[in-house]
Amino acid sequence: MTRPSSVPPPVTAVLDASSRWLPARLGQVENLLREQIAEHGEALAHDAETTMAAGGKRLRPMLVLLCAGSGEGEGPVLAAAAIELVHMATLVHDDVLDAAPLRRGKETVAAASGREMATAVGDLLFSRAFALLAANGEERAVGLLAQASVALAQGELAQRQDAFDTTISEQRYLDRCRLKTAKLFECACLMGREGEEMAQFGSEIGLAFQLLDDVLDVGGPPERTGKARGTDLLDGTVTLPLILAAAVDPAIAEMDLPGLDPAGAVELCDRIAATGALAEVRSRALRMIEAAKAALGSAAFEPEQRRLLELVADGVVQRYS
Amino acid sequence: MTRPSSVPPPVTAVLDASSRWLPARLGQVENLLREQIAEHGEALAHDAETTMAAGGKRLRPMLVLLCAGSGEGEGPVLAAAAIELVHMATLVHDDVLDAAPLRRGKETVAAASGREMATAVGDLLFSRAFALLAANGEERAVGLLAQASVALAQGELAQRQDAFDTTISEQRYLDRCRLKTAKLFECACLMGREGEEMAQFGSEIGLAFQLLDDVLDVGGPPERTGKARGTDLLDGTVTLPLILAAAVDPAIAEMDLPGLDPAGAVELCDRIAATGALAEVRSRALRMIEAAKAALGSAAFEPEQRRLLELVADGVVQRYS
Repeated sequence: MTRPSSVPPPVTAVLDASSRWLPARLGQVENLLREQIAEHGEALAHDAETTMAAGGKRLRPMLVLLCAGSGEGEGPVLAAAAIELVHMATLVHDDVLDAAPLRRGKETVAAASGREMATAVGDLLFSRAFALLAANGEERAVGLLAQASVALAQGELAQRQDAFDTTISEQRYLDRCRLKTAKLFECACLMGREGEEMAQFGSEIGLAFQLLDDVLDVGGPPERTGKARGTDLLDGTVTLPLILAAAVDPAIAEMDLPGLDPAGAVELCDRIAATGALAEVRSRALRMIEAAKAALGSAAFEPEQRRLLELVADGVVQRYS
Repeated sequence: MTRPSSVPPPVTAVLDASSRWLPARLGQVENLLREQIAEHGEALAHDAETTMAAGGKRLRPMLVLLCAGSGEGEGPVLAAAAIELVHMATLVHDDVLDAAPLRRGKETVAAASGREMATAVGDLLFSRAFALLAANGEERAVGLLAQASVALAQGELAQRQDAFDTTISEQRYLDRCRLKTAKLFECACLMGREGEEMAQFGSEIGLAFQLLDDVLDVGGPPERTGKARGTDLLDGTVTLPLILAAAVDPAIAEMDLPGLDPAGAVELCDRIAATGALAEVRSRALRMIEAAKAALGSAAFEPEQRRLLELVADGVVQRYS
């Protein structure tokens, strides 16, 4: 359950299908992010580049903007930038913990400038997110983002506590995914627009996003994911494919995860795949995507807005079809 | 310029001099903190204890409450808890970076549960601070705390950038102190009460606090500070005593800080002390305390409130007299 990072989300397809307002607004978000990060100072220019790249395809900002629709003012642009700053902060801190040398093919802040700088850069990005919203009177967004940030940290803690435990329940895994991934997607959608249907839409696609990321870690292929199969297993992160596989092949739960080497991790991945667990997880993720789209239900959206939201949802699956 | 931690601030004297409202309110803050931290979950009970202890004497919460005065509602209690959560978060993250085994004689979160947990615990404390304020509609406090948090991280970055540089200017050092220490004191005072005089009061005592902490790192004695002399020098943190000493004894600026061992650090401390730099820094800090008290000026305070604020200011100096 590495936080999704290695796979481009379906942003291009959505941008292609959108009329001009969405690309224009995403451009405003990008400028705002660049402004916030440029203020790190000259000596941090290298880290700033790395940080700008770390967030990837701006899926969360796009969700904020799409849920808000084309008619909204500056609020959604601020919210979109703030949620991406928090996302970046978590990635920078993750790289400190994993001592990761590369993210998306670029040197991480941790690798370029050391753990100390990276911890402080993460704290700075995090603080800036709240400062940006507060300075512009975006109180509702502050509350949503703070709650989501609490959930992110709780999810991270839960994952560390569960490390190398092959006996965790499906429920525990799903709770972790909700905290660590789905809650920020939910926050993005709620920042864009109030309502239970928005919360459910965001939460379901966030969960599906994480489930499919965990399938990818086991199933690869590495040439598409950019990382070796079984990376999560080597970190001790037990995900749904393993949990379901162990129900079919109980010896999997007896594996000595702390003793795994990369070759052993790939072997374990094959064994998990042989149980059919990957197809099952994929199919559950698909059902989540359907539930997400159903949640939009009869709520009033602009026709283009609804189409694009469905396209984002479908795109989460198409990454893996 | 280790963030002040090892010396009990002058809380006891203030509590002794105060009528019942202040201890009662500090008790409310303590309960609120305990509530927030207890939610870390059972498995983190040990870390929760450590975290509660990490902040020490609650100097920043006391400033919030004192500046607000006895007549205020729940707002200052929330603000006081939130600022302490941010302070705790920075300490937990500092201990990750320094891999510190002990803080105030207790095992740090980093030592007890590993860097990974400690980074996440710090992020959680930080998020909770904003969530607590946002959930209670404390918008002004959110804005102040977010700004102060940005400054804290900027100060940390500046300090890392300046590491081992014996040629930094006095101005650069003071700017760093403002970001890393004084801004949070200023925030505490402004959370309690609006006004330029509160900002100046907080900022000046925060600066004095840091200057005197830096004197203590050079001058000790270790049996009072609980840490070896020259700890900052070993970390590469160049502070005002060294900067002033180097102006008198230029060879000090030529010292090979990265090559220092603990014995060498103590020798360098002696050499700095021999220039009279410690007395000079102390005297500057005293002038800051006078400026802080003068800033309160003719503003209307309850008589007890003014007396206690002055007592806090004096207490910052008395720690070292």
